[in-house]
Amino acid sequence: MAKRSVGILLFERFELLDVFGPAEMFGVLENDFAVEMLGASTGWVASNQGPRVAIDRALADAAPEILLVPGGQGTRELAHDPAMQEELRRLADSAEWVVSVCTGAGLLAAAGLLDGRRATSNKRAFEWVRSVGPKVDWVPTARWVEDGKFITSGGVAAGIDMSLALIARLTSHEIAEQVAFGTEYDWHQNADWDPFGEALERREASGRLSNSS
Amino acid sequence: MAKRSVGILLFERFELLDVFGPAEMFGVLENDFAVEMLGASTGWVASNQGPRVAIDRALADAAPEILLVPGGQGTRELAHDPAMQEELRRLADSAEWVVSVCTGAGLLAAAGLLDGRRATSNKRAFEWVRSVGPKVDWVPTARWVEDGKFITSGGVAAGIDMSLALIARLTSHEIAEQVAFGTEYDWHQNADWDPFGEALERREASGRLSNSS
Repeated sequence: MAKRSVGILLFERFELLDVFGPAEMFGVLENDFAVEMLGASTGWVASNQGPRVAIDRALADAAPEILLVPGGQGTRELAHDPAMQEELRRLADSAEWVVSVCTGAGLLAAAGLLDGRRATSNKRAFEWVRSVGPKVDWVPTARWVEDGKFITSGGVAAGIDMSLALIARLTSHEIAEQVAFGTEYDWHQNADWDPFGEALERREASGRLSNSS
Repeated sequence: MAKRSVGILLFERFELLDVFGPAEMFGVLENDFAVEMLGASTGWVASNQGPRVAIDRALADAAPEILLVPGGQGTRELAHDPAMQEELRRLADSAEWVVSVCTGAGLLAAAGLLDGRRATSNKRAFEWVRSVGPKVDWVPTARWVEDGKFITSGGVAAGIDMSLALIARLTSHEIAEQVAFGTEYDWHQNADWDPFGEALERREASGRLSNSS
């Protein structure tokens, strides 16, 4: 089997773990997946937390089989960029799977890609994703949601569980379990497991956190 | 309170999630911690999985309060580099906390920093860490192990739990819980929780995984 290409969209102020949780899980299976960082142009971008990461390929030259869109504070501005919306529509059209982590769903929604579909996002950013995706059927309690070739996951760490579920689908459940075991990650295999969405009303997050991204 | 500096050592073939799990958790608390990537020289290094990350500061100019040493295939060669051993001893001497993820413990052990101390590492790399740290009291079943100012954690994702435990210690338990909640991460708060170490004899990992790093 040829390797599947996994293209991860980077932009200024992306959320670190949204990107590198999935990149680790796909990257471990180096015979099955080839992970590349995509961006508006080559060079590097700074994450929301500061660390800077290199872009391997400009979006215009990319056509990944799996397109992964992370979240982060940078999504708030980028969602309104017509050129990015156009690129996302083109990349999504040719991709086998289009997946998002956290507020990455807002970028997909703003490009119209989730209209009429079920989707989720970071539970603390629902007001924003609703504002950019009014025609999306947003699911407030879910670790991840699959609708056609689109899989949207909850906040940050939810992307790791979603990635393992997709790896299980594309390779085997046993291999995905081996990846989780090798990385000593406690994989939540149930897409409906979501104590965070459920607890949101009870536990209002402190304003001290920078991460509602 | 002044921000604490968190210096994360990067080197060729570091393991992505060893670095970016902790970087996310500390980085979310931007008022409490300042995360910097350290390396032998400025420029960038490639991870074990391919993605390249920028070095913010050369080791010679660094003196972080929290020194974090990740694992990855690159540790196997780097452990035998006398200049790196010397730098690690200098950095550890001035640091308030010295923490490692996965086979990062092997780098600390090779520098003699864990001699006579209890420590852990990736459960599948124990033979190697024992070989570079024969005077270390290696603990085969632990999510993380604290001994003095040294905290060593198990494989890859274990570093996230260890980081949250240290954040709880340095800020408050409530704040660490908020970080876990905000990132939708299922935080394992018990250092003795380790189904991976316990299962190792029963579940021999497949040779297909590249990640015994």
